[in-house]
Amino acid sequence: MAELLINSQAFKHNLNLISTHLKSQKNLALVLKDNAYGHGLKEMAGLARENGIESVFVKNEFEALQICHYFKHITAFYGEVSQDAPSNIYQCVQTLDTLGSITPTRGFELEVNCGMNRNGISVDCLKDAFTIIAKRKLNLIGVFTHNGFGDEGGEDLKRQESNSERIRQEVVSLCTSHNLPLPRFHASNSSGTFRQESCNDIVRIGLAGYGYLCAEIDNPPPLKPIASLWADRICSHTLKKGEKIGYGGVWQMQEDRVVSSYDLGYGDGLFRIHEHTHGKLLCDEGEQILPRMSMDCFSTLSEKERICLFRDVRGWARFFDTIPYEILTKLSPFIKKRVL
Amino acid sequence: MAELLINSQAFKHNLNLISTHLKSQKNLALVLKDNAYGHGLKEMAGLARENGIESVFVKNEFEALQICHYFKHITAFYGEVSQDAPSNIYQCVQTLDTLGSITPTRGFELEVNCGMNRNGISVDCLKDAFTIIAKRKLNLIGVFTHNGFGDEGGEDLKRQESNSERIRQEVVSLCTSHNLPLPRFHASNSSGTFRQESCNDIVRIGLAGYGYLCAEIDNPPPLKPIASLWADRICSHTLKKGEKIGYGGVWQMQEDRVVSSYDLGYGDGLFRIHEHTHGKLLCDEGEQILPRMSMDCFSTLSEKERICLFRDVRGWARFFDTIPYEILTKLSPFIKKRVL
Repeated sequence: MAELLINSQAFKHNLNLISTHLKSQKNLALVLKDNAYGHGLKEMAGLARENGIESVFVKNEFEALQICHYFKHITAFYGEVSQDAPSNIYQCVQTLDTLGSITPTRGFELEVNCGMNRNGISVDCLKDAFTIIAKRKLNLIGVFTHNGFGDEGGEDLKRQESNSERIRQEVVSLCTSHNLPLPRFHASNSSGTFRQESCNDIVRIGLAGYGYLCAEIDNPPPLKPIASLWADRICSHTLKKGEKIGYGGVWQMQEDRVVSSYDLGYGDGLFRIHEHTHGKLLCDEGEQILPRMSMDCFSTLSEKERICLFRDVRGWARFFDTIPYEILTKLSPFIKKRVL
Repeated sequence: MAELLINSQAFKHNLNLISTHLKSQKNLALVLKDNAYGHGLKEMAGLARENGIESVFVKNEFEALQICHYFKHITAFYGEVSQDAPSNIYQCVQTLDTLGSITPTRGFELEVNCGMNRNGISVDCLKDAFTIIAKRKLNLIGVFTHNGFGDEGGEDLKRQESNSERIRQEVVSLCTSHNLPLPRFHASNSSGTFRQESCNDIVRIGLAGYGYLCAEIDNPPPLKPIASLWADRICSHTLKKGEKIGYGGVWQMQEDRVVSSYDLGYGDGLFRIHEHTHGKLLCDEGEQILPRMSMDCFSTLSEKERICLFRDVRGWARFFDTIPYEILTKLSPFIKKRVL
């Protein structure tokens, strides 16, 4: 049965690199959203806890509930958190309306738009937000921003960083004037973390924990991809030159050879290789995935019992003109995980 | 919260069309594999049962176990079925080796390669297969083939159809000579079913049940897509001309307008729209999904509380140069389903 193997030592190595850069692990919060970027929410939560992580970020309450006993602080980025959910699950608030309706005891983190113009209240609303927070005696845990240029750098990155710093200062000043305890503050993702020399805030480590960094930065840290994807052989056929394989028979044998089918397909979240796909997509040891891929299997000119599709998704991401995140998060949560 | 709405009346309509074509419903078996092609395994199993379906096909034992109380016959296409699994779950056998090792009491269906050269034993092995089946007193439930040209038609389709007929005749003859009861036989998928005038075998209805047919056939049946995908607004911003949105700020406002973010992204299985994506991808009512899509949200120039991404995935399939199956099966199983 196909498996995603998780290398726990590579994960530890990545966390150590990040902690060393931060000069401490206490501010390292891990992003486990979208099934831990396809790596398996529970498996990665288990490893994160073993490695001393206390704060994590997930997609929504559904994910948070699955790991609520693992961590001190769990923030659900999207959607509401139910009244009866454990108190260590925090909701994210992106509008003033939500500040007006959230249960006062529910811990929450306020997202402020620093220029990405996607989620969060605008800077202009901060004053009103804190008036509501103070008046309704809300349980403000954190304030955060998200920089839309972490991977690109340049002037936009700096502008959003300086907006973020301005937001933080305003939050400090508003807390003082309302006599509120200071919330935690976070703004940096993986690339932001490695761009800065030190950080007193929490950093939200996503991709770097899993072994990748999409940003072009000086002296990139030697992160190690932690997941490799494996498929098992279903069966083999010895075919003659000219025989066709799969849907539409678009692959035709160039010579007499053995072909085998393996138990992963586009229904497992892989991009569907077909005859219009430019170039050859190769498995980790060079076997070509023959077009067309089926929903639950693919064929290749191999007799191996087990084949490794990738140990590093960057090749696949380049091939499909996308980013490692997309290849990883599309992996079906039902692919078996095994932690080594 | 984003939802996939399932139209139970459209599903009933599709099943009725298929039954009318078959002149009976008794041979209609439904394919529920890969989370019912992304529609939700349990939801679709419930609807299928309500509509009197008795035989279904799923991906593997993991899927079969979730719906084992719903149907008389459940066939898992891939992988082994455990010894302690309920007896109405059948394993598929694609090699002679598996025939030698499968638990004799476990019901199974034998796949025979009719020329797709993907899965199944070769025709040449049929005799050996039945020798093992008879000798080990195996519990043979069915024999099936899969035509790789159902959507393309042409000479290859006919050749595989005639191979399939030859396999059936050989199975009948082998059963007679080994004094074995005749197994059920199945070869047709959705397009094969509508191509033929009648069928005494079981037909495996996949895509047509969900409202689509990829094949070009004369007088296509008026199937109705049963799923529509909806996202909810996270928040809105009034932006000025020139302001940028999202990662890398690749979308720049052409005029002062309101932009909103909605709670679906490529981490939910949508294809990631980005600046290299050719053309504009539109929601059902014409709103453009602005590049770049994020993992958990996308932005569009709208203020709607709820937006419909599609009611018919064929547009998205054409846009991404793929087939409806891929768009559907990639939808995250964690998107909430609601049956209407």
